Amino acid sequence: MNLESALRFSHTLLAQAVQPGDTVIDATVGNGNDTIYLASAVGKTGRVFGFDVQESALKETQTQLTLTGLTAQTTLIHDGHEHIEHHVPEDTQLAAAIFNLGYLPGSDKSVITHGKTTIAAISQCLSLLVRGGLVIVVSYYGHPGGQDELAQLQRYLKGLPQKQFQVLTYQFINQQNEPPILFAIQKR
Amino acid sequence: MNLESALRFSHTLLAQAVQPGDTVIDATVGNGNDTIYLASAVGKTGRVFGFDVQESALKETQTQLTLTGLTAQTTLIHDGHEHIEHHVPEDTQLAAAIFNLGYLPGSDKSVITHGKTTIAAISQCLSLLVRGGLVIVVSYYGHPGGQDELAQLQRYLKGLPQKQFQVLTYQFINQQNEPPILFAIQKR
Repeated sequence: MNLESALRFSHTLLAQAVQPGDTVIDATVGNGNDTIYLASAVGKTGRVFGFDVQESALKETQTQLTLTGLTAQTTLIHDGHEHIEHHVPEDTQLAAAIFNLGYLPGSDKSVITHGKTTIAAISQCLSLLVRGGLVIVVSYYGHPGGQDELAQLQRYLKGLPQKQFQVLTYQFINQQNEPPILFAIQKR
Repeated sequence: MNLESALRFSHTLLAQAVQPGDTVIDATVGNGNDTIYLASAVGKTGRVFGFDVQESALKETQTQLTLTGLTAQTTLIHDGHEHIEHHVPEDTQLAAAIFNLGYLPGSDKSVITHGKTTIAAISQCLSLLVRGGLVIVVSYYGHPGGQDELAQLQRYLKGLPQKQFQVLTYQFINQQNEPPILFAIQKR
């Protein structure tokens, strides 16, 4: 066995949290990997809302979804994830949401996620979450601005009321190259 | 699904790391739960070395092992785990070791583990570990002296050379009641 990386562990948790028929959010579509995985996991009776500010990323993902026959259950939205509440019905029973923070590899490195909008988006997901539902955040912070976002995020997550949520961190602590940190927030 | 507690996750990791025929160490036998689990997992062709400074804990565990038919593969040692190297052959191919730090619930609360001896014991386990092997530490730190041990432990683990080891932490960060923190050290 090998200890799972934060990214791998995010997929392990998603696989446990998401069932056919569920509604889920991919808050950072990026290369579309998680969107495609989620669309497959929720199936034709479920719904995936995918957000990204980069139109090229959404176009690529749309192509992949078409090729894999997963378009029917997927809604891609070209907007910042801090506007989730404008696009997702307020009576949504959200089973899970996933965030990959940082910049999109192979793309414009100046387009990064920011603490303020990340926290707004997480907060909106938490308010839609079903009991037992999960918000998973994989934070890459080695780039300029990354440490700021991470610090704001940690402050916010540590302050979430323990009667309503439990917040887990999964992190490798002896590595120089700033591997991503996983946060998982479960609604009680 | 529910996010696993640190204690539960320690068992999940042990179950993945330990195979029949393996040699393993329970560095803090205590109530014997982990010793019994490990003796069952390694089977008659394996070996469990169990350490505790409290004779009553070892006697209780010995009784449990007898009742469950697991004595043949288990060696209980009444000594501090900082003396592992005096009891475990130096050519041992160690698959895993488990530490539960703090005091033994329901027992003398003045008998606690200490940073210096804990670190000595972990270091001895690491030197016996096979490639891919795992040392798992569950740190309870809410009692007097617990924070000291935790701080020393974190400093030691963060300093382990990343080419030889990876060190994972698994921790709930928004809870007031100081739930245990899990550390997992895997040899590369």
